[in-house]
Amino acid sequence: MSAAKREAPAWIEGKDRRLEVLSDVPLILATPLNLLAGQRIIEKETLFVRNIQDLAEGHTLEPRPIEGWEIELVGLINPSRFVIHAEELLEMDQVEYEMVLQCSGNGRAMFPNIPGTPWNQGGVANVRFTGVPLSAVLEKHNVRVDPQVKYVTAEGQDLPMGRELPDLEHSLPVADVLEKSILALKLNGEDLPGIHGGPVRLVTPGFFGTMQLKWLSRLRFETAESPSFYHADEYRVPLSPVKPGERFRFTLENSRPTWFIRLMSYILDPLPEAKLKAGPVFVSGVAYNDGSARLESVLVSFDRGQSWQPAKFETPDSPYAWYQWTTETELQPGVHEIWSRAIDALGRIQPLDGSVHWNPNGYEWTGVFKSKVTVS
Amino acid sequence: MSAAKREAPAWIEGKDRRLEVLSDVPLILATPLNLLAGQRIIEKETLFVRNIQDLAEGHTLEPRPIEGWEIELVGLINPSRFVIHAEELLEMDQVEYEMVLQCSGNGRAMFPNIPGTPWNQGGVANVRFTGVPLSAVLEKHNVRVDPQVKYVTAEGQDLPMGRELPDLEHSLPVADVLEKSILALKLNGEDLPGIHGGPVRLVTPGFFGTMQLKWLSRLRFETAESPSFYHADEYRVPLSPVKPGERFRFTLENSRPTWFIRLMSYILDPLPEAKLKAGPVFVSGVAYNDGSARLESVLVSFDRGQSWQPAKFETPDSPYAWYQWTTETELQPGVHEIWSRAIDALGRIQPLDGSVHWNPNGYEWTGVFKSKVTVS
Repeated sequence: MSAAKREAPAWIEGKDRRLEVLSDVPLILATPLNLLAGQRIIEKETLFVRNIQDLAEGHTLEPRPIEGWEIELVGLINPSRFVIHAEELLEMDQVEYEMVLQCSGNGRAMFPNIPGTPWNQGGVANVRFTGVPLSAVLEKHNVRVDPQVKYVTAEGQDLPMGRELPDLEHSLPVADVLEKSILALKLNGEDLPGIHGGPVRLVTPGFFGTMQLKWLSRLRFETAESPSFYHADEYRVPLSPVKPGERFRFTLENSRPTWFIRLMSYILDPLPEAKLKAGPVFVSGVAYNDGSARLESVLVSFDRGQSWQPAKFETPDSPYAWYQWTTETELQPGVHEIWSRAIDALGRIQPLDGSVHWNPNGYEWTGVFKSKVTVS
Repeated sequence: MSAAKREAPAWIEGKDRRLEVLSDVPLILATPLNLLAGQRIIEKETLFVRNIQDLAEGHTLEPRPIEGWEIELVGLINPSRFVIHAEELLEMDQVEYEMVLQCSGNGRAMFPNIPGTPWNQGGVANVRFTGVPLSAVLEKHNVRVDPQVKYVTAEGQDLPMGRELPDLEHSLPVADVLEKSILALKLNGEDLPGIHGGPVRLVTPGFFGTMQLKWLSRLRFETAESPSFYHADEYRVPLSPVKPGERFRFTLENSRPTWFIRLMSYILDPLPEAKLKAGPVFVSGVAYNDGSARLESVLVSFDRGQSWQPAKFETPDSPYAWYQWTTETELQPGVHEIWSRAIDALGRIQPLDGSVHWNPNGYEWTGVFKSKVTVS
C-alpha cells in the first residue's frame, strides 16, 4: 500500500464531520469529548479509530465478508495446527461484553516531553462487542492447550504501511485469553465494521485497545512473549519509575506490556474551556478501570483538590463498562477548575499529578481529570 | 536448640512488661499500640520482635560482639568468593536511615480465615538503622557484580528451632540491594541488640521486616530467586486475586515475595475501644508507604466513610519514615467509629475493605484503619 496521502474516509467528510483527524496514514481519528457526553454506548460513526497499520479493504464503516475468513492456531496445542473457519462462529453461542475501548496512548498530550500521536482525551469509548469465546471454539474442536503455554500472540491481516515497518502483533497472558477473549463479530449489535477489525477481531475486556487485534488471522500459543517491535519495544512501560525526559532502553525484563486499562475519570459536561452562567452547575462524566474491581467512588473538586464531593452513579452490570456519574454545585463568576478523581475497591486512586507515571511513550495516563471553565 | 518452653526474656518480665508475648519459641513480641502513640522513634525496649528462627546467643537486648564476625559473599561476583570482616565496617563511612520496620504479617488478624501469628497491629515501628552501604564495601574491595545477577539472597546465623524446619533466607532484587542496602551496626544510635540482628543485619529501607535479615552471615549473588521454603512458599502473595478461604499452591511464577511495605495508616490516639468525654477530640496517628513516593494526604472519617477530613502532617526528611498526623473534631455521646486512610502520590489509597487483598497467609494488610470509641 502506498504511503501517499489519501483522502480521508467518507464518513468523516460527511455532513457533520464528527471525528478529529490526527493522522490519515495510518488512520487515526479522535472523538471530540462533547460526543461522549451523556452517552452510555458510543456509536460506530463516533468511535475513535487508531490503526497502527492499515488495511485498504478495511477502510470502511461497512462490514467485511466473513466467508472464507480463516484464523490459524499454532504453537503448543494439540493438534499442533488448527484452522477456525470464521463462518462457523455465526452458528455458535454468542457472548456480549459492554466494555471500555481505550487507546493506551490516550491522554499522552498531558505528559511533558512525549512524541507520538497527540491524543488528548479522544481515544476512548464504551461499546458492546459480541462474539464467540475462544475457549468455546477450542472445546468444540477438542483443541488442547499445553500447560506450558504462558502467552497467546495474536496477528492480524494488517499490512505494513509501505515503509520498512515491522508487522503488528501482541501477546496476552494465556489465562486471560482462555477466560475472557472472544472472537468478536459484532460492534453495538451490528456486524463489525472493517475499520474496527471486521470480520473478526480478538476482544479481551479490561485490556487496552492495542491488545484488541483487528482482522484476526493467527493465534500463537507460546511460552514466551512476542519479541516483535510493537510488543517488545513499543506499547510497554518501565517497571521502575523513570524521570520525565530520561532515556530508557526497553527489554522484556525491565518493562511490561500496556495490557490492563488504568483507572480513569473524565468530566464531559461542562467541557474544558466551557463558558457558563453563574448559579447551579450540573457536572457529569464517566469513569472506569480494568474491570478487576468495582469503582468505590468518583470524587469531584471545585477548589483544586482542597475538598472533594462524591458524585452519584449506578454501578453498571458489566464490570468492564464505564460508569456514568453526575454531581452539582453552585459557581460564582470567575475562572474555576473542576477536577474528577475515581477510586476503586482495590485501593487505586487517580494521582493528583498524573506525570508521576511518566514513561517514554506516554502510555497509560491515569491522572486526575482537570478542567478549566469560565463563569460569568 | 531445644523446642522446650523457655522463660520469656528478662526485659519483658521487668517491672513494666511492655510487650505482648505472642509466642516464646520462636520469640514473637507485639508492641501495644499505646506505646507507639506520639512517638517518632520507637526505642529498643518497645520494638516488636518477630524471629522466624531463633539464636540462643541473640536472645538479648544487649549488643553482641562484632570481633571475628564474617559475612561471606559468593555467586556471580569477581572474585567468586569474598569475605567481609565485620570489624572493618566500624572504620567506614556510615549511612543512617530513619525507616519503618514492619512485619509483613502485621494486621493478619483482620483478614478472615487465616492461620498464623495473630498479629493485630503491634508488629510495626519507626526506627533508625545505621551502617555501611553494601555497595561501598564492594567498591572498596573492587568486588564486581556480574550483570547477569538478578537477586541477592541473604542468609543469617539463625538456627532451625529443633524441629525439621528449613533455614530462613530471602532474596532481594539486586538493583535495590546495590542502591539501598546497608550492613547495619546500630539501632537508634546504639549498637544493634542481639535480638534485633546484631552484630550485623542486612537492612534495605522500604522492604518488609522479614527481608531485613538478622545475624547476616552470607550473601549470594544469583540469577534466580531462592527456592527455599521461607522465600518460595511462605512470605509470598498471589499475583492474581484469590477468594477468601481459597486454596492456593504457591510457585515462583504465580506469586511474588512480600517485598515492599504497603501503604498504611494507624489511629494511635484515641485507641480502639477508648472511652472519651463528649466535646473536642484530638486524633493522631501515623502513616507510611514503601518510600517510593511521598504521602499526598491522610484522611480521617467520623461517619464511617461518608465524609473525610484531611489530617495535618509534616513530611519527614526520610522517605522511609512514618508520618505523624493529627486532626480534631467534636464528638457527641454515643458509639463512634474513627477511620483513617492514607493516599500517596503514585495513586495508591487504602481500600475501604482491606480483605479485598486476601491471601492465604494474611500478608500485607493495607485496609483503612477502623477504630471504635465510646463517648459519654
